[in-house]
Amino acid sequence: MTPSDPQTGATGRQVLAQTLGPLADCWGSERALSIDGQPLSARIPQTPAFLYSRRCLDQAVAELREHLPGEMGIHYAIKANPFAPLVRHMAGLVDGFDCASLAEMRLAQDVAQPDQRLSIAGPAKSRAEHRFAIEQGITINAESIGEIERIAAVAQTVGRQGRVALRVNPPFALKGSGMHMGGGARPFGIDSEAIPALLERRHQLVEAGIDLVGLHLFAGSQSLNGEAIGEALGAWMDLLEDWQSNTGFTPRELIVGPGLGVAYHPGEHPLDLAQLAPAFSRLGKRIAALGERDGIPIDARLELGRFLVAGAGVYLTRVVDRKVSRGTTYLLCDGGMHHHLALSGNLGAVLRRNWPLLAVDRMDEPATEEVDLAGPLCTPLDVLGKSQPLPPLAPGDWLAVLQSGGYAASASPHGFLSRETAIEYLI
Amino acid sequence: MTPSDPQTGATGRQVLAQTLGPLADCWGSERALSIDGQPLSARIPQTPAFLYSRRCLDQAVAELREHLPGEMGIHYAIKANPFAPLVRHMAGLVDGFDCASLAEMRLAQDVAQPDQRLSIAGPAKSRAEHRFAIEQGITINAESIGEIERIAAVAQTVGRQGRVALRVNPPFALKGSGMHMGGGARPFGIDSEAIPALLERRHQLVEAGIDLVGLHLFAGSQSLNGEAIGEALGAWMDLLEDWQSNTGFTPRELIVGPGLGVAYHPGEHPLDLAQLAPAFSRLGKRIAALGERDGIPIDARLELGRFLVAGAGVYLTRVVDRKVSRGTTYLLCDGGMHHHLALSGNLGAVLRRNWPLLAVDRMDEPATEEVDLAGPLCTPLDVLGKSQPLPPLAPGDWLAVLQSGGYAASASPHGFLSRETAIEYLI
Repeated sequence: MTPSDPQTGATGRQVLAQTLGPLADCWGSERALSIDGQPLSARIPQTPAFLYSRRCLDQAVAELREHLPGEMGIHYAIKANPFAPLVRHMAGLVDGFDCASLAEMRLAQDVAQPDQRLSIAGPAKSRAEHRFAIEQGITINAESIGEIERIAAVAQTVGRQGRVALRVNPPFALKGSGMHMGGGARPFGIDSEAIPALLERRHQLVEAGIDLVGLHLFAGSQSLNGEAIGEALGAWMDLLEDWQSNTGFTPRELIVGPGLGVAYHPGEHPLDLAQLAPAFSRLGKRIAALGERDGIPIDARLELGRFLVAGAGVYLTRVVDRKVSRGTTYLLCDGGMHHHLALSGNLGAVLRRNWPLLAVDRMDEPATEEVDLAGPLCTPLDVLGKSQPLPPLAPGDWLAVLQSGGYAASASPHGFLSRETAIEYLI
Repeated sequence: MTPSDPQTGATGRQVLAQTLGPLADCWGSERALSIDGQPLSARIPQTPAFLYSRRCLDQAVAELREHLPGEMGIHYAIKANPFAPLVRHMAGLVDGFDCASLAEMRLAQDVAQPDQRLSIAGPAKSRAEHRFAIEQGITINAESIGEIERIAAVAQTVGRQGRVALRVNPPFALKGSGMHMGGGARPFGIDSEAIPALLERRHQLVEAGIDLVGLHLFAGSQSLNGEAIGEALGAWMDLLEDWQSNTGFTPRELIVGPGLGVAYHPGEHPLDLAQLAPAFSRLGKRIAALGERDGIPIDARLELGRFLVAGAGVYLTRVVDRKVSRGTTYLLCDGGMHHHLALSGNLGAVLRRNWPLLAVDRMDEPATEEVDLAGPLCTPLDVLGKSQPLPPLAPGDWLAVLQSGGYAASASPHGFLSRETAIEYLI
């Protein structure tokens, strides 16, 4: 036992609570990890599988709303989990969708209610994406001046104005974020220092077919540092107020990515939304004041992906073999990196860390051994856990990987080694 | 310019030769990277795409054969590239296939000639895989004692002996290999110290439905160190000779994975097969002697994946946008990590290194600038190159990523962000 792993000796129930906080209730309080009172190993017909909980999605969105000013909307970034039934469910919960491809725009249009706003982001958008967005009145988050020119060219062809929001590469990064998406040189967005000149040109842009409707603000993602998130939101408003003073520009549409993270690894704790509420409140007030100064009501949305869906998903796999090699106990499982690349440490992690991994039918038992877990792929990359604290498990036992609702199924190489695809369920 | 990158100032033609060695000829000597005398940008209808060259596959296998003893066969490990037309082409070149899943066994059976041998490897094999292999007479590389018991149970049900090779976890690792697959504790194979006791039991195993036909020897992959490869081959033979002396066991089937690597990154050089030939020759002689001692002809094969296919493939992508952010020039491309995970540094690399990336239509021009290349995904993980030396390129220009014939298309998360799949061509 390495005393450094805080989950050593913990029960699955304790790991669940530490990882998901208030969302833990969605997975039952029985001896088994459960949904609607039924153990997952009884409810789901086979492994490997992903299970997404409607109730957990509802609760994640409701909790966020509770801590937001009433006028602030929520956008779901489909890229986090594009499973169509899940996106359809989200349409009943959020106020709009952010898309990252033509297929995501089509899916969003298919499920969105008429008053829900859509946007598309991403460098290197195709001409087909620009065309579709312009035709359908979808806001395009422009990532470079070159892109604005390409949008204008397509708008001329279509004979309709393109709705464009400038995606801003800020002069700061979101501190403590798992992924920096702003600060320094970036492929994303337009450097903040180049924004005022563009805003000054906004009336000329109208003639070129560009309706500059607003701004897209995103400094990083996967941050568990509430204070840093609040600071970044304040820094964005400083920029916006400056730009309004200097150029007279007030955005009609504003999308802010706050970068709210989830707890993935031992020692991490879920964000406390109550602690963040004052920062959200200040953000709302400053946005309202910005609009009032110009008599323009600003339609402001927070954009979130992972934060809304990660906790609502579990990845289910079964132990196929238990073996000991030179003193190390291995559990070899039927699921692996081809379904869950991030779990294996091959999606952005420099050094792999363990994930919250639970013995589905033994939630009350403390972790009394540390084992290595590997998947069925014939490669040393297919790792599910290293020195992972668990109760003693045998072939046939089910495991659940928490926080698997976002950037898991769709971000994994399902075709690798031509094994079966994991079936996804929304219950 | 960082003087540390040996490709700064080099032409695409030079990078091609440095990377592929004798295989470079397959990609033409014209001003453009070409196949059958046609520039790739004219021959392939769109990007993103993978192109595999039949001629290059032929040449890779022919060159290896030239340096092997005549009695040593070659197995292709389908997992390296399971594109069906490519696997079908390989059936005309090699002596058998190693499979890693039920689908790969089915594909191998579909394309293999009647006298070609098949095997299946991998931890956590399913019951369906065991059953199919036993029914079809496919050799199963057993990864644990527990697996041997499970094979025996299925063999009883099927009413036919299972052909089993013991996959050995050696007491050594292949030095300089990109992936250690042996030495220390491993999910793969049976620890070498446990092998003699199993060999002693081989006659009892026959009663249990297990025909112990041989051994599967694999210590690592992706090694560019010819000396280390030769040493590992010798160490394997030491073990086999010991086991024969101590237990009287002579394998009828022997599969050896030599772990031959390919040059992926600046400063790496392709293996010199002529330098390896003496080690292959010694291996052949020792195997022959082992068989003669017992009057059993040993059917020995080298198993290779990457080495046979990597150089035969290029990934093709086009520049969509060129932008400068705070002093860094970015080329934003229509291809990225969703098609080529390894290129982005998210497949086993601790720190990402650049790949051989060529301007398809400007092979004679020296690299006069260093640029960052990113794909269309809305994530900072979607990297194609950092400070990559290239001639100055503009939107519309084609890029080719060399060494993309193995562990590329099939090992990537095509569904990520719901963008288009890269089409694969075999020409």
